[in-house]
Amino acid sequence: MNAPLRLGIAGLGTVGIGVVKIVRQHAALLEARTGRKIEISAVSARSRDKDRGVPLNGYVWEDDPVAVATRDDVDIYVELIGGTDGPAKASVEAAIAAGKDVVTANKAMLAIHGQALAEAAEAKGVSLRYEAAVAGGIPVIKSLTEGLAGNEITRIVGVMNGSCNYILTRMESAGLSYAEVFAEADGLGYLEADPQLDVGGIDAAHKLAILSSIAFGTRVDFDGIELEGIERVSIDDIHHAADMGYKIKLLGVAQKTGRGLEQRMMPCLVPDTSPFGQLQGGTNMVAVEGHAVEQVVLRGPGAGEGPTASAVMGDVCDIARGLRLPVFGQPADTLTDAPRAASILPAPYYLRMALVDKPGALAKIATVLGDAGVSIDRMRQYGHSDTTAPVLIVTHTCTRSAVNEALEAMQDTGVLASDPVVLRIEAV
Amino acid sequence: MNAPLRLGIAGLGTVGIGVVKIVRQHAALLEARTGRKIEISAVSARSRDKDRGVPLNGYVWEDDPVAVATRDDVDIYVELIGGTDGPAKASVEAAIAAGKDVVTANKAMLAIHGQALAEAAEAKGVSLRYEAAVAGGIPVIKSLTEGLAGNEITRIVGVMNGSCNYILTRMESAGLSYAEVFAEADGLGYLEADPQLDVGGIDAAHKLAILSSIAFGTRVDFDGIELEGIERVSIDDIHHAADMGYKIKLLGVAQKTGRGLEQRMMPCLVPDTSPFGQLQGGTNMVAVEGHAVEQVVLRGPGAGEGPTASAVMGDVCDIARGLRLPVFGQPADTLTDAPRAASILPAPYYLRMALVDKPGALAKIATVLGDAGVSIDRMRQYGHSDTTAPVLIVTHTCTRSAVNEALEAMQDTGVLASDPVVLRIEAV
Repeated sequence: MNAPLRLGIAGLGTVGIGVVKIVRQHAALLEARTGRKIEISAVSARSRDKDRGVPLNGYVWEDDPVAVATRDDVDIYVELIGGTDGPAKASVEAAIAAGKDVVTANKAMLAIHGQALAEAAEAKGVSLRYEAAVAGGIPVIKSLTEGLAGNEITRIVGVMNGSCNYILTRMESAGLSYAEVFAEADGLGYLEADPQLDVGGIDAAHKLAILSSIAFGTRVDFDGIELEGIERVSIDDIHHAADMGYKIKLLGVAQKTGRGLEQRMMPCLVPDTSPFGQLQGGTNMVAVEGHAVEQVVLRGPGAGEGPTASAVMGDVCDIARGLRLPVFGQPADTLTDAPRAASILPAPYYLRMALVDKPGALAKIATVLGDAGVSIDRMRQYGHSDTTAPVLIVTHTCTRSAVNEALEAMQDTGVLASDPVVLRIEAV
Repeated sequence: MNAPLRLGIAGLGTVGIGVVKIVRQHAALLEARTGRKIEISAVSARSRDKDRGVPLNGYVWEDDPVAVATRDDVDIYVELIGGTDGPAKASVEAAIAAGKDVVTANKAMLAIHGQALAEAAEAKGVSLRYEAAVAGGIPVIKSLTEGLAGNEITRIVGVMNGSCNYILTRMESAGLSYAEVFAEADGLGYLEADPQLDVGGIDAAHKLAILSSIAFGTRVDFDGIELEGIERVSIDDIHHAADMGYKIKLLGVAQKTGRGLEQRMMPCLVPDTSPFGQLQGGTNMVAVEGHAVEQVVLRGPGAGEGPTASAVMGDVCDIARGLRLPVFGQPADTLTDAPRAASILPAPYYLRMALVDKPGALAKIATVLGDAGVSIDRMRQYGHSDTTAPVLIVTHTCTRSAVNEALEAMQDTGVLASDPVVLRIEAV
């Protein structure tokens, strides 16, 4: 019989408790599948006295996560503290230095320090795994790194922040403003302590940076992501987009272009009949496109106790079964620095503008678009009661720089009543 | 540097050639990801002279697949011949006996002989992998066996035969009969040489049997699947189902019940707004439900050169990376024989019947349903020009045995103009 595999868990929030429950309640199943007993040696969290609904008194309590990470009776250090730096990073570094395998759900840490941590783990010959860091219960890291390893990956598209998707779908279904639904979601505890991580797109961008690295063999480059949150998405845009057959999603896209790696996380229009268009509430979805597989779409819960603990336990079972893999799918010292290419590939765009209501206004807009090489696919002017006329335009496929050129020229026409809204339309 | 990993490939149809192309055209990528060069030593197929569009003259040609499987310069035997027995099985057995790892796309062989082959492979300490056997390019075997290993699986639902889904969606979109679309699909080469494998549901059932084994830790039990093909699905049923908000899909379901393992592959109604309801053409979809992860849905191409070769190469890369796993996720000698439980769990049902057009006919049907404990959720009688009245009933949730009892009693009412159509409505 193989020796038991002993976990040390730091962070006993929702996910940590979910992991404890699986280990306690499904011990026989885990042993049948991995050939090893999986046990918990030690735990750590900020408050020792809190009732977490599961008995923890069989485990050693450490106040310091670093102490958990380096205990002799811990084989895998499970880091569920979160945060880019601080105790999460210190304890993961300590675990690696002590020769422990590490399982983490920490997207922020990996998106910023992933390269250094991967190099350290690989130099030490330990595993550093993070299925739970991206898209909750969906086994997307495993699918991309292993299942689709025979593919040259061409594009990754994902809706990877459930809170943003909840806000956007709720705005539409309830006809409420962004501010109203934000307050509602915050009250329900759906948002991070710093909500900007969610609605600013940062959390989703952390995840995209990780997927990009695996997909394209490049060093994690969070700063290279063109980032825009959902704060400026208005209920008007959601309604107008719906009118024209689209939904607005906070969409992450990573793709190789002739000029480098394009990484974007921003609100986009997607066809309302597409799998992404139909994604409701907190569910996550990731499409992986490869030269051979064409497109695989994975869908599942993006957060929550059970789903995230499921992802953590998938990693734990892999380690128990002896699976060893470079952190980002190929050795960290072979990952390259991809040049950054922002929105180089052309796409159709959605433009919403308010024009001053006088003769020739629309003609001026159409002229500057044409001069910039932006051709109009569909245009709608809505009835209005005030002195500005709402105008929607869906362009034919064009470059973002052509759109920008047109937007600049529009400022000189004197017919814009406010700044135009521009959203990319993504084919998914 | 690690030694190259050498493949011997038997079967050079679409999938085999797809594998050759990936190995030849993406050698550097495969090496970066696995740390080993992946090469082809030998190949085998029925016809040596056929032009397959890729150069094969660098590889040893063997007329006998067994010879490929047992060559000293072959590390992994890739079986792409197909068929339950014959050369596929003989060569896989020979490869295992010779200590070779095996990668196969052969669902029929695994569904029938999976237990014996798994025992042989595990006794010999070699890998037997088959991602390509189920749902083409979708990494569902890996997701289920590894990514979701921390879950007690509660249900598997899948649309896993692209030809059937093509036929059903085409019938609806073109308004054609089953016979017309069958002929069309056959002419386009969409069907197996023995089309009964597709339209009889056998191919999809092979896949379901494999997934069940992994999900529930049971021995593959193809004969335990309640099996019904799509031949009796009429365009009328498709239209009536659409009228009531459903699509008809050839749906595989495997779930544990209090009385044993329920495995079904049959046409079912699913809500037209559900991911399964919206699945068009040859695309496959598998939903895996687990106690922790809730539901993960995987979607992708179910067949074709690239997607299936992608799945084969995923397995090859795993072996190159040193991953070893029991064939069905836990050692074959620990898999149990689950009692068979056919349609024990209750569900709503769709009933279509033609009644003789005389007073009291509908009342008699309603009475026998009520007597059997089957309660009616929705009923529609359609206008008609002949002497029989088309009647549709959607029942509340009830057992299949109650429905059967009602059907039997209906025969004695004298009001049925023909045999009723009964389709289960599955919540997915």
